[in-house]
Amino acid sequence: MKRRTAIGLGVAAPLLASRRARAACPELRGTGDLVVVVERARGSVLIAETTGRTVLGRVEGLGDLSHGSLVFSRDARFAFVFGRDGGLSKVDLLERRLVGRILQAGNAIGGAISQDGRLVAVANYEPGGVRLFDSATLGPLAEVAAVGSDGKRSKVVGLVDTAEGGFAFTLYDSGEIWLLDPSDLSAPRITRFAGIGSLPYDANVTPDGRFYLAGLFGEDGIVLLDLWHVEAGPRRILDGYGRGEAPLPVYKMPHLEGRGAAGEHLLLPAVGRHEVLVVDKRSWQEVARIPTPGQPVFVVVRPDGREAWVSLAHPHNGKVAILDLERLEPAGTLSPGRAILHLEFTPRGEQVWLSARDDDRVVVLDTRRREVLASLPADKPSGIFSTARAHRIGS
Amino acid sequence: MKRRTAIGLGVAAPLLASRRARAACPELRGTGDLVVVVERARGSVLIAETTGRTVLGRVEGLGDLSHGSLVFSRDARFAFVFGRDGGLSKVDLLERRLVGRILQAGNAIGGAISQDGRLVAVANYEPGGVRLFDSATLGPLAEVAAVGSDGKRSKVVGLVDTAEGGFAFTLYDSGEIWLLDPSDLSAPRITRFAGIGSLPYDANVTPDGRFYLAGLFGEDGIVLLDLWHVEAGPRRILDGYGRGEAPLPVYKMPHLEGRGAAGEHLLLPAVGRHEVLVVDKRSWQEVARIPTPGQPVFVVVRPDGREAWVSLAHPHNGKVAILDLERLEPAGTLSPGRAILHLEFTPRGEQVWLSARDDDRVVVLDTRRREVLASLPADKPSGIFSTARAHRIGS
Repeated sequence: MKRRTAIGLGVAAPLLASRRARAACPELRGTGDLVVVVERARGSVLIAETTGRTVLGRVEGLGDLSHGSLVFSRDARFAFVFGRDGGLSKVDLLERRLVGRILQAGNAIGGAISQDGRLVAVANYEPGGVRLFDSATLGPLAEVAAVGSDGKRSKVVGLVDTAEGGFAFTLYDSGEIWLLDPSDLSAPRITRFAGIGSLPYDANVTPDGRFYLAGLFGEDGIVLLDLWHVEAGPRRILDGYGRGEAPLPVYKMPHLEGRGAAGEHLLLPAVGRHEVLVVDKRSWQEVARIPTPGQPVFVVVRPDGREAWVSLAHPHNGKVAILDLERLEPAGTLSPGRAILHLEFTPRGEQVWLSARDDDRVVVLDTRRREVLASLPADKPSGIFSTARAHRIGS
Repeated sequence: MKRRTAIGLGVAAPLLASRRARAACPELRGTGDLVVVVERARGSVLIAETTGRTVLGRVEGLGDLSHGSLVFSRDARFAFVFGRDGGLSKVDLLERRLVGRILQAGNAIGGAISQDGRLVAVANYEPGGVRLFDSATLGPLAEVAAVGSDGKRSKVVGLVDTAEGGFAFTLYDSGEIWLLDPSDLSAPRITRFAGIGSLPYDANVTPDGRFYLAGLFGEDGIVLLDLWHVEAGPRRILDGYGRGEAPLPVYKMPHLEGRGAAGEHLLLPAVGRHEVLVVDKRSWQEVARIPTPGQPVFVVVRPDGREAWVSLAHPHNGKVAILDLERLEPAGTLSPGRAILHLEFTPRGEQVWLSARDDDRVVVLDTRRREVLASLPADKPSGIFSTARAHRIGS
């Protein structure tokens, strides 16, 4: 009996070691089909995958994620999560753990990653400005205080990376667009455009990285800067864009989504109105307005450019509007859940993932059949981010 | 002494197990920054990464890779490599080994992966047709014999996935375009367009998956099929495109590269001539011809759409032409190596990777400074494929 036990142990020991070895190995997988879902109230993110449509895990301890957003490392292994509390967190999507976290400001609104993937930039409200960090270590590299022409530090909005290796951002308080060239980190070069208009509330760049557009809250119109010809300076387009003379109440400021570009058109959510503006990218003239069953918030073009799917502000945020981008007319309305805060297509467009905050669910739809493929539990989900963004300019 | 040894062993055993465990774990890494380089003569691929610009490893045993191409799984972990010998090989980019290989035909020319990632399709010359395989197992799922209106099996070229979940391909011998809807694999639905013109030698689809274009070798012109309106059928555009009445010798047939789309324009390599045609995507009229220092082969648009980089046919294949896509004129010529067979931008465009076959090198350039960042040994490299293609329609 004793001998058999001893033999048994002799066999078991290597087996055990081998089992331990396998258990010690984190799951080997590609990172091309991952999505990260912000759980705003809980201060966590879910990591999910779009092939089997399952949640792989949760990473907690990311602070205040109201208006939380994130960007990906160039290898799509890490997410850099920007919290409202000024937190910058680095999440390993494979080991599914927090690998770094700093509180880099008192109040922040988002960020970007440089074209080469080395620099993470954060847009700060308090103190106003942009700070640059090493994407490998989160070590601080440079700070640009956004002191506007009024002599005060301004809140920074609309921070994006550009195709020229730099960043563009907008000073909310003083109404300026700044370009940041980080080639020399000891003295980042700044190009300033002051007097662009009153209270630019958000900005973004077209998917090619060429046109930087800022929306104004203090007056009507959009500010357009052609980054291929910065010498020409910013100009005003779409004077009819904005709250107008008899403004509707604005329940939620729309986002200027870079993904709102489709072929020759750019789609802009009207401010306060129940419509999406269609703008010709050659003339920058409005060519159509497509009605929506509520105030549009995110206007997201399906990857094939044939449709846009639009999330709506309260009290219509249980609906999602679908627009036909060839006919420039409505193509249907869905009711996929309560309080749809964000939506993200898989990169080739066959699925769309939607955050239904008040259902504590992420709903996945087949985009052609508009049928539910999966409904995944999530704690007050907001932003959804596909790792395919790692490969995009202005993401 | 004996006791100390025993204690020593007691400590060492778990350490050893832990070390073994670590050694047994394949390297954990994201797959967003990988490129796969075809080594055509050796029948192998190199797996490299664009962050540190190093070669990670080589996978051999892939058969005849002349005209070798590949597509990626949706998670960007696997490459499906199409060999000239009809071989279909599945390569694990993380473990860097061949995980599956079948000889599915006698002679093949390329393939595609479905929008949902489940189906790998191969275009075959001998016997002519398309075969569909399970991307997980490489098990056969369906075969479409390309029997044209002449009653014979035709060689198949220009096989691409489309945004509607299907595939498009072209029958070389009988001059037809077929659409394949694989919703029911027991009886794939085929839509046929016969009589499109003589000897369509290659075809591709625009990055949005909408316009399928086939080039003709037997006569001038390009065949255009709008996949949003297949009921309208194919039509002929660009009657001036082709070898023309007094043809130059054609040293290498150009490729119709899906990536040749930039904003409102489509770029087409002229056949036999030293120029690239610029076509307006609204009117499908030629708007410019940009001269190149040789016959263009691959016309690849930089991700920001500001430039196209063009590889050239023998005897000019030591040069790469750069075109300014705003001015529609030449913007320089580089000589990055001998026999440049292919080039691939990193997805956000800051680097370009070029195969210099006769130097046995892959050369990496900074696209803005046009300076060499790295020169990596490779055995007669040809096609270079970034994993970002996993996320693209028609890749």
